[in-house]
Amino acid sequence: MPGNRLARAGAGLHRRRLDALLVSHPANIRYLTGLNASAGACVVTPSACTLVVDFRYATAASEAVAGSGIQIEIADASIDDGTIAVMRRLRPARVGVEGAHLTIARFNKLRDALTPIELISTDRVIEQLRVIKDAEEIERLRQAGRLISAVARQARMWVVAGAAEVEVAASVDAAMRQAGFERPAFDTIVASGPNGSLPHARPTRRRLAEGEGVVLDFGGVYDGYCVDLTRTLLIGEVPAPFRRMFEAVREAQAAAIAAVAPGAAAADIDGAARRVLAAHGLASAFGHGTGHGLGLEVHEEPRISRTVPADERVQAGMVFTIEPGAYIPGLGGVRIEDDVLVVTGGCELLTDAPIEL
Amino acid sequence: MPGNRLARAGAGLHRRRLDALLVSHPANIRYLTGLNASAGACVVTPSACTLVVDFRYATAASEAVAGSGIQIEIADASIDDGTIAVMRRLRPARVGVEGAHLTIARFNKLRDALTPIELISTDRVIEQLRVIKDAEEIERLRQAGRLISAVARQARMWVVAGAAEVEVAASVDAAMRQAGFERPAFDTIVASGPNGSLPHARPTRRRLAEGEGVVLDFGGVYDGYCVDLTRTLLIGEVPAPFRRMFEAVREAQAAAIAAVAPGAAAADIDGAARRVLAAHGLASAFGHGTGHGLGLEVHEEPRISRTVPADERVQAGMVFTIEPGAYIPGLGGVRIEDDVLVVTGGCELLTDAPIEL
Repeated sequence: MPGNRLARAGAGLHRRRLDALLVSHPANIRYLTGLNASAGACVVTPSACTLVVDFRYATAASEAVAGSGIQIEIADASIDDGTIAVMRRLRPARVGVEGAHLTIARFNKLRDALTPIELISTDRVIEQLRVIKDAEEIERLRQAGRLISAVARQARMWVVAGAAEVEVAASVDAAMRQAGFERPAFDTIVASGPNGSLPHARPTRRRLAEGEGVVLDFGGVYDGYCVDLTRTLLIGEVPAPFRRMFEAVREAQAAAIAAVAPGAAAADIDGAARRVLAAHGLASAFGHGTGHGLGLEVHEEPRISRTVPADERVQAGMVFTIEPGAYIPGLGGVRIEDDVLVVTGGCELLTDAPIEL
Repeated sequence: MPGNRLARAGAGLHRRRLDALLVSHPANIRYLTGLNASAGACVVTPSACTLVVDFRYATAASEAVAGSGIQIEIADASIDDGTIAVMRRLRPARVGVEGAHLTIARFNKLRDALTPIELISTDRVIEQLRVIKDAEEIERLRQAGRLISAVARQARMWVVAGAAEVEVAASVDAAMRQAGFERPAFDTIVASGPNGSLPHARPTRRRLAEGEGVVLDFGGVYDGYCVDLTRTLLIGEVPAPFRRMFEAVREAQAAAIAAVAPGAAAADIDGAARRVLAAHGLASAFGHGTGHGLGLEVHEEPRISRTVPADERVQAGMVFTIEPGAYIPGLGGVRIEDDVLVVTGGCELLTDAPIEL
């Protein structure tokens, strides 16, 4: 674990005039300490870090923090009781808590036990650090991108007339496992024919047929890091309007990818895709945003969407999806998604270029 | 969706002198409305229920609540903004929120927007209803139990010397999909030889070998409902101490299952397993609880453990796991898990009887 993550977190505390930050979100705990655990907490001060776990994760925690200087507190009862013990030793005056993650039941318990320590709700202290990937993270995401692309190339074998959507989804999931992914990053989407018009369709027992499009959207977790990819495959000759929609989405994706560079406004990257679709009469067929950040979570910052403030700009080291789509009830849907890393002058594609016909 | 779930929720409000309950936990929303969505909210009053969703779930919400009398509010911006709009129309004085689920950031936003409405943290209002399964839920859990048992019977094919743990896990996951499960209920555990001594082991590239035990712990989600099963398979002749540990765990599981009946204390069911293991000198080898409830979540009430209060008794209609284990560093581990439904006079096994050699 790069030690400067803790140093950067400490600097963040200083700016917010906090003596400590209680980190409770598992992805943030993993980012700071390397520990992959469903339960735990981390107390960060400008000069130290204590990881609180229960007996289940005692061994894993020791291995994760070996040599890092991070201390471990084994909680006897609950994680919160362990956190309270750490705070009583440290005696900070102002402690930040993660407002988007800590529940009110836990907040109330901690506040009552820790009086007069002041608990202050904070927003995205660690998430803001996570948005710029370091070299170690980029290497994992590159490798994950290669592996998910290899799975996508196999998809043509499964997407054939007569196969059921759920069967295709099972093949995708098995291939991800085989490729080395720990698990799917989300429930795999296989949406054929008219089902394609729902962006969040779940696979059904519907069988694929000649002359239709099939949206495959899947992601995998590799060594903790998430990648996410969508392909729309065509079975035989599709109707001309569907074909035009497919070409328009390909063009929109290429335009958005071309717009990615350090300093580009996130809203402008989204706008590049949206303008292409509008020019093809598909403005109202594209209801979602163009992309989302990837990392320890499959949806994280930055958001690439028309609703982000105009001054939010992407920076080198950010990793996100570019996934415009078009959805027309009755006709079906098209979505094409790849993952990009922002680099000097533009971006590096972490997944394959959009599929050729 | 049985309409009496809402009636029972309304009665719960009355007892707590609440005018409304804001339900934010997805499993609780699904229980009350039938909607399966990652984001949403539900405002329950003694006489009505409003489901708040955004545009993504508008169609699914209409289908879920058709004919139920539940109203739908489509949120323009965030779910919380939609909730605020509903509350301003209803004007309740005292509103319960789910303390174990609502984050402090959302609580603060709602409180500031809704003054002078009083928001009160509540604990397990809907979870307490969910613990007794109704006929519809029992039928789904029975079917899911049959399906997961069929997957377990295939496991002998995959658990062979030379196979890697990750390969066995991939086969389990593929078979669950094939059997009709929507997804694994948690990351499948395959822990061979010495790895078996970690109750929460993750599958590695380690290859299975002759003469060792392999713990397989997996679960599936079927029509929203979770089942969970563990088998310990033996490859060829295992060392005598391992064999004795295996027999002791089988005996402990049988004792715990025999102790299940309406009115039995959860701690006594746990104690039945624990006494058997202690008699075999394995008291300290069994560090976790004997079982946990199953339903819309894979870990829910009741807890079958020595730490629950002595007066917590199981009731007919509860569904939970019985999964004693023994773990000895160096030697490995054994865990055997089945799912039971409490019925008059005893329990019904939802999964197969423990595996025969």
